[in-house]
Amino acid sequence: MSAPVVEQDAIEAARARIRVAYDPGLLRQSAHALADALGEHLAAIQAGQSAVLPWQSPGEKVRDAATYLQENVPRAAHAAARVPAADSDPLPAPPRVDRDEKVHLFAELVRKMLQHGLNLHHPRYLGHQVPAPVPVAGLFDAVGSVTNQCMAIYEMGPWATAVEGALVERLGQQIGWTPGQFSGLVTHGGSLANFTALLTARNRALPDSWEQGLPGGDAAPVLLVHSDAHYCVSRSAGMLGLGTNQVLRVGLDPLRRMDPQRLDEALTACRQKNRPVVAVVACACATPIGAFDPLPEIADVCQRHETWLHVDAAHGGSACLSSRHRHLVDGLDRADSLVWDAHKMMFVPALCAFVLYRQASHQFETFRQDAPYLFDPSAPGLAEYDSGLRAVECTKRAAAFGLWGVWSLFGPQLFADLIDTTFELAQQLYQRLDEAADFQPLHVPQCNIVTFRHLPPALQAAPRERQGDFQLELRRRLIESGEFYIVSTKIDGLGALRVTLINPLTSVTELDRLLTTLRYHGQQLLET
Amino acid sequence: MSAPVVEQDAIEAARARIRVAYDPGLLRQSAHALADALGEHLAAIQAGQSAVLPWQSPGEKVRDAATYLQENVPRAAHAAARVPAADSDPLPAPPRVDRDEKVHLFAELVRKMLQHGLNLHHPRYLGHQVPAPVPVAGLFDAVGSVTNQCMAIYEMGPWATAVEGALVERLGQQIGWTPGQFSGLVTHGGSLANFTALLTARNRALPDSWEQGLPGGDAAPVLLVHSDAHYCVSRSAGMLGLGTNQVLRVGLDPLRRMDPQRLDEALTACRQKNRPVVAVVACACATPIGAFDPLPEIADVCQRHETWLHVDAAHGGSACLSSRHRHLVDGLDRADSLVWDAHKMMFVPALCAFVLYRQASHQFETFRQDAPYLFDPSAPGLAEYDSGLRAVECTKRAAAFGLWGVWSLFGPQLFADLIDTTFELAQQLYQRLDEAADFQPLHVPQCNIVTFRHLPPALQAAPRERQGDFQLELRRRLIESGEFYIVSTKIDGLGALRVTLINPLTSVTELDRLLTTLRYHGQQLLET
Repeated sequence: MSAPVVEQDAIEAARARIRVAYDPGLLRQSAHALADALGEHLAAIQAGQSAVLPWQSPGEKVRDAATYLQENVPRAAHAAARVPAADSDPLPAPPRVDRDEKVHLFAELVRKMLQHGLNLHHPRYLGHQVPAPVPVAGLFDAVGSVTNQCMAIYEMGPWATAVEGALVERLGQQIGWTPGQFSGLVTHGGSLANFTALLTARNRALPDSWEQGLPGGDAAPVLLVHSDAHYCVSRSAGMLGLGTNQVLRVGLDPLRRMDPQRLDEALTACRQKNRPVVAVVACACATPIGAFDPLPEIADVCQRHETWLHVDAAHGGSACLSSRHRHLVDGLDRADSLVWDAHKMMFVPALCAFVLYRQASHQFETFRQDAPYLFDPSAPGLAEYDSGLRAVECTKRAAAFGLWGVWSLFGPQLFADLIDTTFELAQQLYQRLDEAADFQPLHVPQCNIVTFRHLPPALQAAPRERQGDFQLELRRRLIESGEFYIVSTKIDGLGALRVTLINPLTSVTELDRLLTTLRYHGQQLLET
Repeated sequence: MSAPVVEQDAIEAARARIRVAYDPGLLRQSAHALADALGEHLAAIQAGQSAVLPWQSPGEKVRDAATYLQENVPRAAHAAARVPAADSDPLPAPPRVDRDEKVHLFAELVRKMLQHGLNLHHPRYLGHQVPAPVPVAGLFDAVGSVTNQCMAIYEMGPWATAVEGALVERLGQQIGWTPGQFSGLVTHGGSLANFTALLTARNRALPDSWEQGLPGGDAAPVLLVHSDAHYCVSRSAGMLGLGTNQVLRVGLDPLRRMDPQRLDEALTACRQKNRPVVAVVACACATPIGAFDPLPEIADVCQRHETWLHVDAAHGGSACLSSRHRHLVDGLDRADSLVWDAHKMMFVPALCAFVLYRQASHQFETFRQDAPYLFDPSAPGLAEYDSGLRAVECTKRAAAFGLWGVWSLFGPQLFADLIDTTFELAQQLYQRLDEAADFQPLHVPQCNIVTFRHLPPALQAAPRERQGDFQLELRRRLIESGEFYIVSTKIDGLGALRVTLINPLTSVTELDRLLTTLRYHGQQLLET
């Protein structure tokens, strides 16, 4: 009977190593080390120390990350694994339990992560629509990660479910909806949120499509979308089986907003051709220049044509929270569905994207399914709280903990402050660009997005394509220098620079410096 | 000129409040408070203190969570917002900057979150396929949250991209693939991962579908899937426009594994009917009883029929990492695509789900799109590292930080230990159930999933439906008692109890107690 003993010894050795990894003392000490590392890092970054982006080629970084991953698991162990347990090699003795050594290594790994990331809290991060978040939001989030609070069914994350439900209520009220009549959920990102809402719209417009698939041919159903809609909208058509060719782009007015008159004409044309319309997709705001659609007029048109109105308010939904700026989203309450990313203008870490439905019952039209071990007929009243019934994800993170924590700790005034401050910074930047002979702002900013071109004198007579390409090359040079982080886009097919003022600690001094730095790198670029 | 001054005063007041929220000292002190709270909580929970699940109705919990969310943002402020800034009401004075008070409130909120969650680290959590994670994994994750490292494009999360790339390499090697020939990415959960892979398969099988939509009618394309496949597979068919009716379920053998012979027949029938096959979906393992499909035989059949083989190895992929158990996933290297959730049997917090492609180039067939501000023609070589080209999400979290940290800190032996220990616990539970006259195990466990029924003497002659319903009622009573957390399922349409040994600190003593506790509640239930 020696065989089982050897086996039990191996299991006991494994358990000993597991106890080291699950030691509450290790968690506590590591978390204290993390506290110091994060505090120190944030202070340095906010003070503008180090590069915004520590540029290194991705191949090098991957190799660097791989060096930490030991590869000592036996790979060709098929044969060994099939012999009886007693004959398997005894596992190595458990390592010396040295908590301090682990904490030391933990701290080293954290430093590595902090040194090699993009520094969004740097005052010269003027980046994508991804904010320098309220730092403690990430700590609230960590409560969910360490304890692994999940959703899908209520039981698995009771507080996560509660927090999400409470926030959906608050956001719906901010939009102007009546409590009890609307519904919503959190998804992992704006793209998935838009997809979820458009799936709901598809299932409403084409009730057979869930089970039978989509009708093809001349009567193929269409999506009518803002010409500058985010690429995830067109992708959604591809994913949903509608086909990207069935995405009809509605023309814009001179301010790059969807033109309600053209929308009306497009909907009339679809009706004449007997083409079902899955949804109209408007933007609040669209990404290229941050233009907010005239939602009341668009809602009137959709109502007349009895068409589902979806509003991608991923970026601009938060304007609801500022008395100064909420006029930008007048009419948002008339959307059938909308997307609102808290991880954009509510300044919490990604991802925390809300899908909201004006009519509460629509949330259950996204899916129909039967997962017996998830949705328990012994407690049917709980199903309403089981997010798995409504979300593409089955298991979801407790993605709203950060938002709930920040709202609870600072109150909603902070969100208004963040919006007002960053929108104001955009006006400051616009003024500077407008006054400079070698910069060309492409629009008056409505929010905190500013798109422009730098045109040094030597380039002002160049062909427009050359001018556009120059912007992309200039940006590449700028971000690899580590001095600023900005992005680029194309407007009417030509390259442009694009800034989102999404770090509230950016100062006007940095905006002046941005122009100076672009001039410097522009000159260097022209000389090469 | 008094107007701009008032406006600037309001902005300055907002900035002052923002500085309080972004104070590195507040982050540091709060993180230290978090360290103590988490350490204390984990010690208490691991010691089995408090209920596994602090049961409370969801409605009550939502109301509780809402009480923390002040609602003082002016809602009907449209008129005010449109008057010139100078006329708007002055904002209230900034609150007294009291860091200690904020830290105190932070700690209170954290305690609230910890008190109201599900305690996965409790030794009597035997729950869903969601682990009691290695605690420090959540701290590595927090580095990403606090600093908001994201993906979509390389620049936004250089280290997140590096870590994901390095881990994809390691996992592919564990499967047995040749470095450089495969590819993969992380998505937010197994459901989204399966959807992503099946979208890729759809676009390969039906190259026109992305742009033109799906062909309907008699030639509707099908998915051939394991009869016990997770509900997300059928959902994927609904979402992708194939229609859930086009999901053909392949019969199982007596061990609830996909039968290769029946698969062969089904594929032959599809060919005879000219119905395109998008993919075959096998399981490693299927959820109800944790059955692993015979992948080599299934791969042979798929190869003969030239059909895409997708393996949902969300739970079982990790068996690769244990020399004892990797024989369960023999043949996994022959899958065209597979899903492997690190947030299941690699014991990191949700979500960290890998989609892996045997042939590297397939990763770029999931989508075709053009997002000028994301994918920069000035640096085409970087596109390979831009996850947005391959993921349903645009912005992604740095979802692999926890896994990278745990692997780096403890080495891969820890994963083998976790698998070996929890699989062994399942055998221990099975033995106990098998020996008890009033328990009926429904299968010999292949991994750490055990499905069974409790049949007290009074119920042994009852109709099978009554026996099944009893299991669901028993579970409801058990989990609301807070004494254990287990789940339920249906096997052949009848209710059953289901346990996943997914907390490695569960002991055999707890398993004995589970049976005793079920007997107790079963008796109570019979008496009501």
